[in-house]
Amino acid sequence: MAYRNLAKKSRRGPTAPMKRFIDLETKNLNSEVIKTTNSFSDEIKTISSFSTDHPLTNSQENQKLNQYENKVKGRFDNIVPLLKRVSSLQNDLNFVERAQNLCRSELGYELPLHILEKAWVGSIDISALFAWCVFQSHQLTSNEFFNSDPIEGSENSQYAKSFQSFLYQCGFHLLDITPCADGRLAHAISYALRIPFSSVRRRSHAGALFDIEKTVNRWIKTEHSRYRESTPNSATEPTRYLKSVIYHFSSVDPTHQGCAAHGSNDELAASEGLQRLLDFREAVENSFCCGASVDLLLIGIDTDTDAIRVHTPSKTNEVDLKSWVCANEIYKETQFLKAEEALQKIQENIKRVCPGETDPNMVMFITRLISNNISQIDYVKNFHSGSYQDAGHAERFIGVGIGFKEVHLRNLTYFAHLETVEQGAPDLDVGVKIFTGLNISRSLPIPIVIRFDYSGSVPHARNRALSDCHRINEAIKSRYRDLIDNGSLHTFLTIRDRDKKAPAEVVGSSLDPVTQEAH
Amino acid sequence: MAYRNLAKKSRRGPTAPMKRFIDLETKNLNSEVIKTTNSFSDEIKTISSFSTDHPLTNSQENQKLNQYENKVKGRFDNIVPLLKRVSSLQNDLNFVERAQNLCRSELGYELPLHILEKAWVGSIDISALFAWCVFQSHQLTSNEFFNSDPIEGSENSQYAKSFQSFLYQCGFHLLDITPCADGRLAHAISYALRIPFSSVRRRSHAGALFDIEKTVNRWIKTEHSRYRESTPNSATEPTRYLKSVIYHFSSVDPTHQGCAAHGSNDELAASEGLQRLLDFREAVENSFCCGASVDLLLIGIDTDTDAIRVHTPSKTNEVDLKSWVCANEIYKETQFLKAEEALQKIQENIKRVCPGETDPNMVMFITRLISNNISQIDYVKNFHSGSYQDAGHAERFIGVGIGFKEVHLRNLTYFAHLETVEQGAPDLDVGVKIFTGLNISRSLPIPIVIRFDYSGSVPHARNRALSDCHRINEAIKSRYRDLIDNGSLHTFLTIRDRDKKAPAEVVGSSLDPVTQEAH
Repeated sequence: MAYRNLAKKSRRGPTAPMKRFIDLETKNLNSEVIKTTNSFSDEIKTISSFSTDHPLTNSQENQKLNQYENKVKGRFDNIVPLLKRVSSLQNDLNFVERAQNLCRSELGYELPLHILEKAWVGSIDISALFAWCVFQSHQLTSNEFFNSDPIEGSENSQYAKSFQSFLYQCGFHLLDITPCADGRLAHAISYALRIPFSSVRRRSHAGALFDIEKTVNRWIKTEHSRYRESTPNSATEPTRYLKSVIYHFSSVDPTHQGCAAHGSNDELAASEGLQRLLDFREAVENSFCCGASVDLLLIGIDTDTDAIRVHTPSKTNEVDLKSWVCANEIYKETQFLKAEEALQKIQENIKRVCPGETDPNMVMFITRLISNNISQIDYVKNFHSGSYQDAGHAERFIGVGIGFKEVHLRNLTYFAHLETVEQGAPDLDVGVKIFTGLNISRSLPIPIVIRFDYSGSVPHARNRALSDCHRINEAIKSRYRDLIDNGSLHTFLTIRDRDKKAPAEVVGSSLDPVTQEAH
Repeated sequence: MAYRNLAKKSRRGPTAPMKRFIDLETKNLNSEVIKTTNSFSDEIKTISSFSTDHPLTNSQENQKLNQYENKVKGRFDNIVPLLKRVSSLQNDLNFVERAQNLCRSELGYELPLHILEKAWVGSIDISALFAWCVFQSHQLTSNEFFNSDPIEGSENSQYAKSFQSFLYQCGFHLLDITPCADGRLAHAISYALRIPFSSVRRRSHAGALFDIEKTVNRWIKTEHSRYRESTPNSATEPTRYLKSVIYHFSSVDPTHQGCAAHGSNDELAASEGLQRLLDFREAVENSFCCGASVDLLLIGIDTDTDAIRVHTPSKTNEVDLKSWVCANEIYKETQFLKAEEALQKIQENIKRVCPGETDPNMVMFITRLISNNISQIDYVKNFHSGSYQDAGHAERFIGVGIGFKEVHLRNLTYFAHLETVEQGAPDLDVGVKIFTGLNISRSLPIPIVIRFDYSGSVPHARNRALSDCHRINEAIKSRYRDLIDNGSLHTFLTIRDRDKKAPAEVVGSSLDPVTQEAH
């Protein structure tokens, strides 16, 4: 992103806001603040251009991210108004042509002919058209994401490269984050924490309760790469695997809009998230010798304001569930300070809530998270009146399977990360329940995008991903037979070669025309 | 096993047969034969005591293995005769007591009281009693296996330790074998190949078509342990991971009793097995740098005689599907030779069928397999008239899930290795079809043992294994509703902590008494 390269450009002839930040580095701050500030220097942020923004806020980045959010969500939100117009045309003699022209010019794609052509017989199947439009919108967004890296988080981006160095400076060779699968956390990485998506392993799970055995396997793969290939760094370097959990709560309606998996009970969400982290560490420590371990970080997020709370772990990995540093409070405490003073305050707060001796590397990392999150607090202030209108669920589709690297927008996708419906049915049932309220109550169907990522370098892996897609599709058809039968649930099957970093490939849909078999 | 330690005992005062073998080592054989012979020396076999046995046959081991087979299969085969007697008693006033006495004395366990006590009202539920007895027989056998290592293949056994050294001598740090899941191959490792079960990773799959992605993961785990923990040896040692597939065919009825997964087509079974091996190697080579690769070995087995055929791979891993060394032919060719001459002939044959330059280590390994298999050919000759009476399926129960390390007898278990019924349904359906023929046709139910092994050192892994068991049980109930409803399918739920190497734990059964809820 051009705006992320301002730091370098600025050095050749700094802009006014840039100069203010560079001044930070020359001031007589204590050494740790300087260390933290230095670590930011490569992708230093431009300081607020909104007069009310916090001095640490990257206002230009906020503008760009808002444009992206508006563009993508606009695609989905334009569907209903357009289909109302299509509906009003259905008795027109030139209906098909007029509908296609309208859709092409307003949404950028056509409607399926085999559905439009049936309109003259009875009434048009608007429900099927709605699902079609959702799937097309998803596909356009997905293609754009893999083709042009609109939020500039791919591993080739400058931002990702510099963030990766920052991670090493903090002593971490891998960052593995599990947010709750709730659609209101789908933007947690790229927006709320401003971490380039390629710098983090994201595995969303209901209640942030990740699978221990699978995460241990992921840890093994990472360590094996370090030993064999020195990727991301050599196993001889004393860096750590950082596993983080993001639980969530609601400041506006705490008893109803918190985490459904924990009955909107914040304390439970935090304690179960921490327990899962501790269990993971114990699994690694018990299963491997030679001091094998991981670092842990527990984060909470307010789904109304996107403000995070971080439970600072001590040097010996103690975590206090009742003690955290809250980005929102820090925001208020520091909004009228200079940037360097604000950073210092952040560090003080981080240290204050630590239940033991602090680890300077961890403090540096959390300082970055809080500082990044301050931009997001201003994002929500500026573009969502300080608190999201859609306090509850407002996802546009359900994503089922393995993948969806491209989803980074709040309330775009309810994600059921699963390999089989048999294992993932509870998560999927919650998704169907949510969409019964969101869509079926408005006579609109539930759109489900199925995705299986595969590794193209493994022989026949594409075929297996294809079979997985169809297997899941059949399992969904069997589990939600009534919804399928009355056209209230549609599926869209996609696979993606993660080695090629190419867009996903569409391999089927419940909206495909039924081919008559010859007799 | 005492008989496996004969070599050491013999050195203090060799028996006549031992002396014959020791003479081998002093003879002026070519160096490779000596090398091979030396590698056998630690667990050297006693030479045939059956006058007709092949000079390389370990007759005493055959006797012991036959005793084990008879004991275990006897447990299952005594069930029907006993239940016929129980059935004849059902109108007796002292029925419960007499039935229990009979069962206790003949089978070694009691029948479930809540089923017996209903007998006076109508007729006794013999079908449920049959399933109960199968489950008890399995449990007794399973406990015995983990408690007393009856076939002496555990990692603490002398045989396993010496076989492991032999593997290193052959240049392999891990032996990973996939036989077909067909019950007629359940004894392939411990009987047909005489490999200690703890020295091999066994993953049975229908048609021997193992899962590439999971096997790559297993390879990663192995390599990671070598790098991190020098287990089983250090990554700096130039040893290899050997992946082998065992396909099968029938010499007695080749077009009907071959591998069902390949339509009883031997060529197809071999070529698809080889393709899977090549795909696995390609996946490893494409996914990792630094010369990552694996060695491959394709083996066929005749399910009537247990004679194997081995497709000798060349030094550069070429394999010829049409060229193999057949243990049965070698048996005939060498049965009247001296042991050392027989070994030399084996080596010559192994080299002759190789499609390129031979790898001496691989020749040494295959020589061992063929030599071991000659014992099994005599086993089938002596105890099964040279060809099994049960040419087709005759399994006693279906094993579903992850585990069953204790099953090493031919036609004891039809194995559906699966994590979910959703993914493993095709294999399970085949099992149910087989048992429809074997049991339901005789008005006996299908007994399914569910097993999930877990790693007790991972927090809450036991709970997850328990949930997995119940999930699979529910999925089976849902898939085979009609069979369940009329009592024609029973399940037995077990879990096992693989870290403790302890027996499995029974955690439920469809035969448990139904507890009435209070109102």
